Amino acid sequence: MERVAILGTGLLGTSVGLALRAADFSGAIIGWNRNRAHAETAQKMGAIDRIAADPIAAAREAQVTLLAVPIYATLDLMEQLAPVLGPEHLVTDVGSTKAQITDAADRLFNAPDRAGFLPGHPMAGKERGGAELADAGLFRGAVWLFTDFPAWHRSEQAVTLARNWREWVVRMGARGIDLEPRRHDELVAWVSHLPQLAATALSALLESEVGEAPELKDVGGRALREMTRLGASPFSMWRDIAHTNTEAIAATLQALEQRLAHIRENLRTPELREEFEKANRFRRE
Amino acid sequence: MERVAILGTGLLGTSVGLALRAADFSGAIIGWNRNRAHAETAQKMGAIDRIAADPIAAAREAQVTLLAVPIYATLDLMEQLAPVLGPEHLVTDVGSTKAQITDAADRLFNAPDRAGFLPGHPMAGKERGGAELADAGLFRGAVWLFTDFPAWHRSEQAVTLARNWREWVVRMGARGIDLEPRRHDELVAWVSHLPQLAATALSALLESEVGEAPELKDVGGRALREMTRLGASPFSMWRDIAHTNTEAIAATLQALEQRLAHIRENLRTPELREEFEKANRFRRE
Repeated sequence: MERVAILGTGLLGTSVGLALRAADFSGAIIGWNRNRAHAETAQKMGAIDRIAADPIAAAREAQVTLLAVPIYATLDLMEQLAPVLGPEHLVTDVGSTKAQITDAADRLFNAPDRAGFLPGHPMAGKERGGAELADAGLFRGAVWLFTDFPAWHRSEQAVTLARNWREWVVRMGARGIDLEPRRHDELVAWVSHLPQLAATALSALLESEVGEAPELKDVGGRALREMTRLGASPFSMWRDIAHTNTEAIAATLQALEQRLAHIRENLRTPELREEFEKANRFRRE
Repeated sequence: MERVAILGTGLLGTSVGLALRAADFSGAIIGWNRNRAHAETAQKMGAIDRIAADPIAAAREAQVTLLAVPIYATLDLMEQLAPVLGPEHLVTDVGSTKAQITDAADRLFNAPDRAGFLPGHPMAGKERGGAELADAGLFRGAVWLFTDFPAWHRSEQAVTLARNWREWVVRMGARGIDLEPRRHDELVAWVSHLPQLAATALSALLESEVGEAPELKDVGGRALREMTRLGASPFSMWRDIAHTNTEAIAATLQALEQRLAHIRENLRTPELREEFEKANRFRRE
């Protein structure tokens, strides 16, 4: 792997560029971003060597192309790249839901005469996006999920590049875990999408209830700040997730509503102790 | 204020002792705890000078007595102390709900021939209790709520001691805010009790859903850890709060259930953007 293209130089794409350099990747890193100013920020930070004029040209030049854009933009780029890349290329991504992307990979890539596609999802991020918040250590200690199919008949070159990319993921400090794509989407609904939407709901509710009295926000202290930090997450980062994992997310939200109702109905019964003890078990190391 | 008694040397009581010393309080600090071993820990840490054999003796000896025990234990101690303390004493507390404690203060204290009682509530804590986690800086930057009644006919000594105590609260790094007791209980239901119970509900739910697969807990990353940290809070710290603020807490829980349902029903509509934007506003500085 000597030439990497990063399409999308937001928080994740730029952090991957910085993390590759920090892990001593010495090849070329070509960057592209729809808004060129953000690519220039990534270049100034040392995450990319140069800026490509368009995403197709960048991907054709690279062996490995990382798609680091929102989910629908990822699906669009997959449609554009599949016809112009050959079996000597690998494309991978960082999309937060994997069923639709993995279906598209099956349909458009991963045949002997086509580019390979390795669906990936690093479980790392911040409550705000943007190249300027990028961090070479973002993936240290994180899990990087893959929803790859061993049955795909990839070219030998694409198989080798996929193995290479997984090795670089480890060098960036992450741990790879393989999951079936629908299982992935269910799991992240529980451990990522539900916590985000719980923070959004709590923050929006408190904005309605105490937002007019800003001095009262201070009253909550650390617990409140922590439980609402993700309330700062922009809709633009979450719209595609809500659209492409709707059923799984709706099931987790309904389960949380029921759990809160159960607590509400048992504020003075011994059931409350059981809920606290179950919660304590989740946090036990 | 030359002699202070701290009844209850858990996280808060011990932190007050340490914070007083850090703020150069040079008087005597007498400690008592139902379980003497915890008082010994507080003494070793330098939070108290000596350990009293019983809470009554400690309070009689002190000018200011801080009750730093759970709410029902606070109410019990108030009953025991009122008949034995005179107008030269002030009692204050750290209880998380204030309506019942302020009613008891009105009934038992705050007459010219009785001890004064200043109901207080520092908005500081940790998800686990205990003297060994105490911290001289716990109150730095925190809000310390008071639900005092200006109409109480306190002795002059008690008035002076209450003013002294408020000054020490500021020296410990906190900012005092006065609230009417029922307004206090409603407000903390929103900014403290609801975030705690949301974390408990989320943690208990995830324990049921992914608790059997501990490797999957790692998948969630920082967002999940943060949204479930308070899941470690022990029931013993929360039972009395749930019992003494049931109606206000139930109202906030129901509001959160409704907000989550609203988000669930709008995962693919423009309403979702409005919820994110409202949440963003809550987090705007």
